[in-house]
Amino acid sequence: MANFKGHALPGSFFLIFGLWWSVKYPLKYFHQKELKKNRLSQQQQRIEITEGAIKTAFAIIGILAEQFVPDGPHLHLYNENHWMKLMNWQHSTMYLFFGVSGIVDMLTYLYFNIVPLGLDRVVLAMAVFSEGFLFYYHVHNRPPLDQHIHSLLLFALFGGSISISLEVIFRDNIVLELFRTSLLILQGTWFWQIGFVLFPPFGTPEWDQKDMDNIMFITMCFCWHYLVALCITGINYFLVYCFLTRVKRHAGGEIIGIQKLKSDPTYQSALLSGSDEE
Amino acid sequence: MANFKGHALPGSFFLIFGLWWSVKYPLKYFHQKELKKNRLSQQQQRIEITEGAIKTAFAIIGILAEQFVPDGPHLHLYNENHWMKLMNWQHSTMYLFFGVSGIVDMLTYLYFNIVPLGLDRVVLAMAVFSEGFLFYYHVHNRPPLDQHIHSLLLFALFGGSISISLEVIFRDNIVLELFRTSLLILQGTWFWQIGFVLFPPFGTPEWDQKDMDNIMFITMCFCWHYLVALCITGINYFLVYCFLTRVKRHAGGEIIGIQKLKSDPTYQSALLSGSDEE
Amino acid sequence: MANFKGHALPGSFFLIFGLWWSVKYPLKYFHQKELKKNRLSQQQQRIEITEGAIKTAFAIIGILAEQFVPDGPHLHLYNENHWMKLMNWQHSTMYLFFGVSGIVDMLTYLYFNIVPLGLDRVVLAMAVFSEGFLFYYHVHNRPPLDQHIHSLLLFALFGGSISISLEVIFRDNIVLELFRTSLLILQGTWFWQIGFVLFPPFGTPEWDQKDMDNIMFITMCFCWHYLVALCITGINYFLVYCFLTRVKRHAGGEIIGIQKLKSDPTYQSALLSGSDEE
Amino acid sequence: MANFKGHALPGSFFLIFGLWWSVKYPLKYFHQKELKKNRLSQQQQRIEITEGAIKTAFAIIGILAEQFVPDGPHLHLYNENHWMKLMNWQHSTMYLFFGVSGIVDMLTYLYFNIVPLGLDRVVLAMAVFSEGFLFYYHVHNRPPLDQHIHSLLLFALFGGSISISLEVIFRDNIVLELFRTSLLILQGTWFWQIGFVLFPPFGTPEWDQKDMDNIMFITMCFCWHYLVALCITGINYFLVYCFLTRVKRHAGGEIIGIQKLKSDPTYQSALLSGSDEE
Repeated sequence: MANFKGHALPGSFFLIFGLWWSVKYPLKYFHQKELKKNRLSQQQQRIEITEGAIKTAFAIIGILAEQFVPDGPHLHLYNENHWMKLMNWQHSTMYLFFGVSGIVDMLTYLYFNIVPLGLDRVVLAMAVFSEGFLFYYHVHNRPPLDQHIHSLLLFALFGGSISISLEVIFRDNIVLELFRTSLLILQGTWFWQIGFVLFPPFGTPEWDQKDMDNIMFITMCFCWHYLVALCITGINYFLVYCFLTRVKRHAGGEIIGIQKLKSDPTYQSALLSGSDEE
Repeated sequence: MANFKGHALPGSFFLIFGLWWSVKYPLKYFHQKELKKNRLSQQQQRIEITEGAIKTAFAIIGILAEQFVPDGPHLHLYNENHWMKLMNWQHSTMYLFFGVSGIVDMLTYLYFNIVPLGLDRVVLAMAVFSEGFLFYYHVHNRPPLDQHIHSLLLFALFGGSISISLEVIFRDNIVLELFRTSLLILQGTWFWQIGFVLFPPFGTPEWDQKDMDNIMFITMCFCWHYLVALCITGINYFLVYCFLTRVKRHAGGEIIGIQKLKSDPTYQSALLSGSDEE
Repeated sequence: MANFKGHALPGSFFLIFGLWWSVKYPLKYFHQKELKKNRLSQQQQRIEITEGAIKTAFAIIGILAEQFVPDGPHLHLYNENHWMKLMNWQHSTMYLFFGVSGIVDMLTYLYFNIVPLGLDRVVLAMAVFSEGFLFYYHVHNRPPLDQHIHSLLLFALFGGSISISLEVIFRDNIVLELFRTSLLILQGTWFWQIGFVLFPPFGTPEWDQKDMDNIMFITMCFCWHYLVALCITGINYFLVYCFLTRVKRHAGGEIIGIQKLKSDPTYQSALLSGSDEE
Repeated sequence: MANFKGHALPGSFFLIFGLWWSVKYPLKYFHQKELKKNRLSQQQQRIEITEGAIKTAFAIIGILAEQFVPDGPHLHLYNENHWMKLMNWQHSTMYLFFGVSGIVDMLTYLYFNIVPLGLDRVVLAMAVFSEGFLFYYHVHNRPPLDQHIHSLLLFALFGGSISISLEVIFRDNIVLELFRTSLLILQGTWFWQIGFVLFPPFGTPEWDQKDMDNIMFITMCFCWHYLVALCITGINYFLVYCFLTRVKRHAGGEIIGIQKLKSDPTYQSALLSGSDEE
């Protein structure tokens, strides 16, 4: 869907996940500082599996929207000697990768003594890379502003892909997790921005897609979006800290909602066997 | 051999090795989780040497096929002021690198107290890199689809090269090994795809090599190939797990076919001396 | 401000910080070799916070200079269907990133038990990256020499960005810190060089911006600047060593100006929790 | 000197150093496997300082040759409104970087309790990078074969630069050292190859610099050079092993020429302080 909704949909998906991560990782970080030994609680496991399920659901929604929109391909790929709506098929492929990533996330935390830790990160990195890969070959023969606004996205995507790959080796590093979160929020807001610039929704005037000044402004605007994403990540980090401090004071040292559990030796040995190469 | 067979041959080689790796690395991983201390059994050593030998054999077959095909150069490089069949010579060079890599693999595991660990990975990385390097300069002055379909391969090659180089430092990391496996399977299936697209074998109609839509489809198709490669890797991983669990249940805790051996102190000190810089 | 002053201002900022770093990091390094256990003294904390404050102040000065220069945009972004002075706005954005980095530096050392270590480095890396990012899209449609002299800066910027990112994982590595210092000094001197070449201040003759020889000279000149930056870093390193040795001899083994302090257990646990993923 | 000698000179320098390294690093490696605790002997220190001195001498010879060749600039940079012989000045700058690297090598091993370990590697990496950097901007407006044959060098240079940078963190890793050695030998043989191709010395016919086939051959030839460099590195590695084994058998377990020394506590603490960030 090369229209406003087609950008607002992934934009919302990325934003929801980005905002959720900006709460989740600080929570995990402060929790780990308390309980050093138990590295994965049942609570955390349940959260991760839910996250994987929602990611998969978002991917399915995205694929269905791309396929069954009125001018979509309706799952027809080839017809009478020409390809059908390859644009929509490419978008579907992007969603499909995130769907696979969601399924691998669920498997990683459901069968944590079988699936090696880090596989979820590799598959997520490949999903983000493939999105960038498809966008890279996506924008030929379009007006300059259209090309430029999409190619800016590549910085967030390839940067994110490298950062996520690093998490295979430096897992549970809060700085890498927050960096990834900020890039995801950036991606979310930028998809909305693309929608507003290329397909002005509320009768606002069209942008001149060949004006050099517009391109210069959009470049700068991308930097501002990143600053906003950084601020949101920072504010959520701080709110989580305040919340946890307050809860702890009320409960007398115990954190509500995060159960202490008996350390699961099977899982921990899996963890150690995964991390002793580092 | 710039024809169907010339792509089917390396495609089969890469596929065979990729499928084998997708079995081998899970086997090694689950085996290592059992026996933490003995890091290399005689069984494993024998497997690695056989693998090196087969790799070398494949390389020799490839070189012979490129050289002695009817319209090949028959080992003549220069004749009457012009170079002979440089295409075939370049392909031979690619095979030659993998042959050297196979020999180094054999040496690494035959004389493991002499050859430093990690050398096999560097040489393999260089073999994969050289393949990409030669392909990069290979495709000038060809139709757009031909150029594009070969250049997509570069993503698998340079990605694989970086990933294998990382194994020098993070050796025996199952996630890196599975990632490498999936890229190799991708390479294998993609060579077959190239053969089918550029040289349709069964009288299927020719592809229009200048049609933009074909290029867009091929880009997306490359992503699908990777998803298939991921699935194959995952399924084999799971089958190995099932097989090992079943064998263990039958044998009462002992794994058939993987002998426990006395820990070889020479090798282990070599291992430790190699890994203490990390 | 695309004039001499507009390059002399950031040049001075970078030079001041570069020279300061070339003193600070050797000081920290030799101090740490003495006191292994106490990894952060109050003195050091105070220095870091002051540095962050000065960085923020420089950024504010830069933004004000860009906005309120006579031909500046005076905070107007859009007016009568065209963008106002986007050049100055882009420069302001660059300064803004460094301002944010300064604020994060201050927060990291003020609330070191809340803010994760390494965040300051990520934000600084992003500030340097954004500067390179904006410069990359900045120089289209300019004379060749102008383009070239700015694009050389990108080597220092992207190199610096990678190096600073590595400090997230290998924090307090003196070699990375000195490398970063040398790149910052290079940036400082290069901004002055740009000012002198593009806007000769003292009535010196204009440079021919299309002469190939000028471009060749400027390329080589950039290398010389780096050699000078290396020398300055080295000399300051040596002077700090001499100073500390002399002070120690006078004071009988105690270093003046760097107080020993009781080890702060809160901070140290934060440090350990941040570094145990490495 | 854009002639045969101008390529044979650096070619010989790189070859001599490459061959020396292919002996030195195996020697160090096998020696370290014996004496685990004493990580730097006086013998080794003396070797490193001599190596630094020879490197500096080679650089000075190179600079003098470039400057005082009959058609050289004789240290004049600017004369009557035009730059003098910028080619030779650029080559001099390349040599100069290696000279600085040699001086830093000497300082690192002379004052090892002052200079941080790893600085020698950073400066060497920058010297190699600068060589690539200058070559990159060096080859505009030349015939295609000339451009191509120089740009192939960039792979060896930038690859080497990345590899040497990694040694800052993974110091004394034999695999990285051998990889660097092979790239240096490649560089040496390739400079000779450039000399033979662009300036045929013995009355051999000129190469057609626009023939596409020549370019294809040269690309493949570069790969062959790397294979030769790998073989030389491997053979020297094996010869060193044989030599050491034989010497040990004769001397009854003691290695001649490598003195055991009292462990120097100052140096070891410096080593430890340098490596505890890794």
